[in-house]
Amino acid sequence: MRATLMYSAGDVRVESVPDSVIRQPTDALVRVTASCVCGSDLHPYGSMKPEDGPARRMGHEFIGIVEDTGSEVTTVKRGDLVVAPFAISDGTCEFCREGLHTSCAHPQANFWDGEPDEGGQAEAVRVPLADGTLVKLPVAPDSALIPSLLTLSDVFGTGYHAALMGGVSARTRVTVIGDGAVGLLAVLSARRLGAEQIILMGRHRERTDLGREFGATDVVAARGEEGIERVRELTGGHGTHVVLEAVGHMPAYEQAIGVVRPGGVISRVGVPQYEQAPVDFGTLFGPNIRLAGGPAPVRAYIEELMPDILDGTIDPGKVFDATTGLDGVPAAYQDMADRRSLKVLIKP
Amino acid sequence: MRATLMYSAGDVRVESVPDSVIRQPTDALVRVTASCVCGSDLHPYGSMKPEDGPARRMGHEFIGIVEDTGSEVTTVKRGDLVVAPFAISDGTCEFCREGLHTSCAHPQANFWDGEPDEGGQAEAVRVPLADGTLVKLPVAPDSALIPSLLTLSDVFGTGYHAALMGGVSARTRVTVIGDGAVGLLAVLSARRLGAEQIILMGRHRERTDLGREFGATDVVAARGEEGIERVRELTGGHGTHVVLEAVGHMPAYEQAIGVVRPGGVISRVGVPQYEQAPVDFGTLFGPNIRLAGGPAPVRAYIEELMPDILDGTIDPGKVFDATTGLDGVPAAYQDMADRRSLKVLIKP
Repeated sequence: MRATLMYSAGDVRVESVPDSVIRQPTDALVRVTASCVCGSDLHPYGSMKPEDGPARRMGHEFIGIVEDTGSEVTTVKRGDLVVAPFAISDGTCEFCREGLHTSCAHPQANFWDGEPDEGGQAEAVRVPLADGTLVKLPVAPDSALIPSLLTLSDVFGTGYHAALMGGVSARTRVTVIGDGAVGLLAVLSARRLGAEQIILMGRHRERTDLGREFGATDVVAARGEEGIERVRELTGGHGTHVVLEAVGHMPAYEQAIGVVRPGGVISRVGVPQYEQAPVDFGTLFGPNIRLAGGPAPVRAYIEELMPDILDGTIDPGKVFDATTGLDGVPAAYQDMADRRSLKVLIKP
Repeated sequence: MRATLMYSAGDVRVESVPDSVIRQPTDALVRVTASCVCGSDLHPYGSMKPEDGPARRMGHEFIGIVEDTGSEVTTVKRGDLVVAPFAISDGTCEFCREGLHTSCAHPQANFWDGEPDEGGQAEAVRVPLADGTLVKLPVAPDSALIPSLLTLSDVFGTGYHAALMGGVSARTRVTVIGDGAVGLLAVLSARRLGAEQIILMGRHRERTDLGREFGATDVVAARGEEGIERVRELTGGHGTHVVLEAVGHMPAYEQAIGVVRPGGVISRVGVPQYEQAPVDFGTLFGPNIRLAGGPAPVRAYIEELMPDILDGTIDPGKVFDATTGLDGVPAAYQDMADRRSLKVLIKP
């Protein structure tokens, strides 16, 4: 079968690899019908060195048809259309029961990005812990809803996690930092939770226009001190109760410190590309700013978010602005890195 | 009048200074009847350099008798016994109304430690914004409850803030790092909020014994990796939902990372003596650990915590293990720095 591998920064290839097969009685084999490239895939695409190790299989967001199941799998069967979250989890451990599937205690629990020889940007995938991980979709593989349902595997659930961990409610003002797919869906999520003001910080006009469609009340294109000043002007001087940080680089963290209101929350879902950050009296401590967030347990949110997609209330799939076959995946990475594409849908 | 000044690390003196007097119509002049030395006073006592500036007036915790008031003061009057929180606040701005008095927006709002020429380790103090800052006490100046009521000015409210910001409830397990007065009162606060398990990490036997009396269910004397291992053993391997960090040094932060459960909260009230800290995937982000806390808006908690002191339900004043007059203040600093005293009460 064919699959996507990253060799090093800027070097993504689609190659023939051994077919994925069932190995454990709890596995399912899924034929991928829709997948995509993630903003977080761009981090290694910008930084991976050949000495970081062998080529990595890529892709942690996919929808597909169950082709085979291990003997212990009970919740999905051959022929089912399913969506997979970006983390493998058993659904039964104490963390999964609390809704923190990304900390699943099962020995086979993993992020797809850490799972050897499997990935969603491929023709097929072996899915460990299929009962806990996969969710059946009540539509056909060619449904017009597929792009929106595919966002349940990561970007929509991640934006929603940011908003939930930030404590967004009808009485909160929110700043969203980053106009990538996660930032835009953080806007949609903040709107869904009733935020009274949603300020989107981003510089790409087509993206921030989509952000307005998703519910942003204000857009700030300026960055750094100028952007901070502008957000403060929009909020009576004090900044917003909640900041959703959907980038992961230090300038975004510093911007978050600049626009958060005393007593507020910075909720991070952009994977931090730094180890240390300022947390001292002059930044977080003095004004009692809280720092929250992490990899989203999107599995916990799929059933909650799906009905609004199925009935057409929301259309998070609008974050996809391009579609390609597997052959076009290397170009899709480059297009996203160059900001020519917001997010590319893959039809293997 | 006489007051305490710090000249540099290890150099605290009690000297004659100009009498404090009313300057603004919102001021009150308070004759101090009880004051104390704070764990946070030990930070400059360990590090202040002569080139850091002129000698500083010390003391941010006190009880006293109102001797005079400005023309606009309405809530306290001459002869009232009052307690002052460690932060001056107006009680009416948007932050005070939300209970975040430490971020009071009034131009005269300040921490006592930043207020020039005033301090609680003295015979008298000018109190700005007296209506917002001072709280009348319904006891006599020589009441046996004075030590406990004095803890409302900082250490009890600070321990309580840690527990509140950590989200302690009847369903949480808690680790308290630090057996100083704040750590011990964080134990008492966690107990008050119903925590099912309270693990106190501290090495001083008399202090941890008081911690047990305040509600600690377990004491861990080991530090670093060994201490972390011990807490994990006590909690089924995963650590506790909440960690109350009452120290402020980097090893305490690292210990907090080691004992907090995925999805949990590290609530800091020890003033951080570091600027940057690890907040990356391997520490906070990956397991969705939240970081909370800051200087406690103790003014918000005085009315809530006082009744249990007045009726004898709790006795937070047990953290005082020594008493001195003003002359003994320099020795009190040294005794606390050497861990000979836990917390010294001053009777000017």
